[in-house]
Amino acid sequence: MLELRLVQGSLLKKVLESIKDLVNDANFDCSATGFSLQAMDSSHVALVALLLRSEGFEHYRCDRNLSMGMNLNNMSKMLKCAGNDDIITIKADDGSDTVTFMFESPTQDKIADFEMKLMDIDSEHLGIPEAEYHAIVRMPSAEFARICKDLSSIGDTVVISVTKEGVKFSTRGDIGTANIVCRQNTTVDKPEEATIVEMNEPVSLTFALRYMNSFTKATPLSNTVTISLSSELPVVVEYKIAEMGYIRFYLAPKIEEDEDETKPQA
Amino acid sequence: MLELRLVQGSLLKKVLESIKDLVNDANFDCSATGFSLQAMDSSHVALVALLLRSEGFEHYRCDRNLSMGMNLNNMSKMLKCAGNDDIITIKADDGSDTVTFMFESPTQDKIADFEMKLMDIDSEHLGIPEAEYHAIVRMPSAEFARICKDLSSIGDTVVISVTKEGVKFSTRGDIGTANIVCRQNTTVDKPEEATIVEMNEPVSLTFALRYMNSFTKATPLSNTVTISLSSELPVVVEYKIAEMGYIRFYLAPKIEEDEDETKPQA
Amino acid sequence: MLELRLVQGSLLKKVLESIKDLVNDANFDCSATGFSLQAMDSSHVALVALLLRSEGFEHYRCDRNLSMGMNLNNMSKMLKCAGNDDIITIKADDGSDTVTFMFESPTQDKIADFEMKLMDIDSEHLGIPEAEYHAIVRMPSAEFARICKDLSSIGDTVVISVTKEGVKFSTRGDIGTANIVCRQNTTVDKPEEATIVEMNEPVSLTFALRYMNSFTKATPLSNTVTISLSSELPVVVEYKIAEMGYIRFYLAPKIEEDEDETKPQA
Repeated sequence: MLELRLVQGSLLKKVLESIKDLVNDANFDCSATGFSLQAMDSSHVALVALLLRSEGFEHYRCDRNLSMGMNLNNMSKMLKCAGNDDIITIKADDGSDTVTFMFESPTQDKIADFEMKLMDIDSEHLGIPEAEYHAIVRMPSAEFARICKDLSSIGDTVVISVTKEGVKFSTRGDIGTANIVCRQNTTVDKPEEATIVEMNEPVSLTFALRYMNSFTKATPLSNTVTISLSSELPVVVEYKIAEMGYIRFYLAPKIEEDEDETKPQA
Repeated sequence: MLELRLVQGSLLKKVLESIKDLVNDANFDCSATGFSLQAMDSSHVALVALLLRSEGFEHYRCDRNLSMGMNLNNMSKMLKCAGNDDIITIKADDGSDTVTFMFESPTQDKIADFEMKLMDIDSEHLGIPEAEYHAIVRMPSAEFARICKDLSSIGDTVVISVTKEGVKFSTRGDIGTANIVCRQNTTVDKPEEATIVEMNEPVSLTFALRYMNSFTKATPLSNTVTISLSSELPVVVEYKIAEMGYIRFYLAPKIEEDEDETKPQA
Repeated sequence: MLELRLVQGSLLKKVLESIKDLVNDANFDCSATGFSLQAMDSSHVALVALLLRSEGFEHYRCDRNLSMGMNLNNMSKMLKCAGNDDIITIKADDGSDTVTFMFESPTQDKIADFEMKLMDIDSEHLGIPEAEYHAIVRMPSAEFARICKDLSSIGDTVVISVTKEGVKFSTRGDIGTANIVCRQNTTVDKPEEATIVEMNEPVSLTFALRYMNSFTKATPLSNTVTISLSSELPVVVEYKIAEMGYIRFYLAPKIEEDEDETKPQA
């Protein structure tokens, strides 16, 4: 039997909003340690990994490991019916082909049960090894979202270049070019407004803006975003989920076929 | 001659917004007692009844009974031009085929006259007898609107079941089932947040969510809604209009052809 | 070399929003006195004239007169990437076929450069002589915008009539007629809420609402609008730009072919 009670139910609503456009169907894996998901996007280009640790739930009962296949769009429809202050409980009986989402209003005057059919989904779980990155940038998540959106009005790809001074986002399109530099800055009033660059060696990589914009749907989950870059590895865009875990997006860099043609001007 | 001066003109704007999608053309009936309307929706399934009592107007002059046929969409276009703080006066000369809506800004610096052609509309006025209901539920109107909207994302019909403990709204659709229970609750800080169930006998009736959602367009008119249910009668969904009258929507229950197939799980 | 630094960068963003739907491509003219534009709308009916005086810029360097042809839609896309509190600098090298917009965040932590190709645009600069007008109306810009929008839901043209008492806006359409009178009113709490009529002789002129609505896109630039009317001249709809200049729209009145048919009722 599975029963996971999450007092801050809005977290789960935000998680679904951040992945439902990227992934159609996925298995949620429940074990003693937590509630997690790993899935490729529908075009098999990006990977999303979610972890909500068991300690983050008010009540966490998971008698045996369980993999529940869900249509994320349908799950999102149901979670949208939860109020932002509601407590959400995820329930499943052993061997059942359904999952129940229970929403309790803070006053306990309104109790809702939404039952959804589970699906059989083939999926292979990729082992993602811990890796050394050339550069890790931590910055305000809203700033990163704004930059990806702004650059999308000019071009299709973004070059992310990290130096000691900061991080540069560049693009080029029919109407012109754009370069946005965020300087390393740790002397801010609020720690979440800092831009911090940890760099082992300079790195400059190109990514499809379409995916970056999709990842930024997770912005409501965290004030900051961490971008880990290495020339031989997919970029990791990570949003921490307060005291519970994270959502991580992985995307392989684009290989520039003709540097002179497509690389934005410095 | 007709001259009805309504200081809180925004009420009339809200009334139009709550019925214009349900009813295309309708007769507004003016008499010494008040300004009223009774009309079937365009598919002849639901009935709407409006009453604004003469006492609610700052000035109310209606020399003889008058029935004015109006296109509600056009009337709504004109009323949208009134400011939310404007005083609205409805004027018509005897025998005239037009009606004039006058909007005065609170400072009297802006005065607008909108003149609209009247229409000849055949309509029969239904006598609606006072009836005994099995159960009457009073609840916050925003809560009822939210429930109808939420259930619409899952199914097409809602089963409303009243017991002593409270009222349950259920639906079933391709993606699953949903049950929302609102408990009777009278110990609230503000009286308009109470959910009150008056029950003579338990009742469980099925309605088309499309119409329920349409009725909830009247939500801005009142903090509370009253739902009167009886197995032999159309449901009445009533929104009181502050010290002036009401807007009531009537809708016949759906007859379940195969209870086991279509009834949501308890 | 050209380098114009505007601390209140949001002004330039608002200027672009107010003209980009009216004009596709236009020359911005830079001289020692200021940054200006004059252009016909794409259907060659309305004229827009913009002036931002050099004194309004924190830094203004313009070595020689320069005319820069820009696609306003592309320019608007780039300016939308500037934050509302950003400082905007317009830069161009002599003989260059590009212009650069630089955006600096207030903290200087984020610096963006957007480079856009310039275009060759044929344009003749019209001399607009100073003229005497029959009547000049100054009123709150939001009120004027609201009136144009409201009347558009009824008809296609607006008759603007000025008398000593105030200004009347009238229209007529299939669903009826509308008259909105704004009374002269100088005894208001805030000067920008005043409606002031300066009249040499009464005037009544008809204009296409489509254009008037387009002009009101400049509303965010100023709390007040000035409408100058004369029976032999195009109307001038002017929005002052705080301590820097103005944006003016010119539109010829419509000649009524059959007064009785098309003129709204008094």
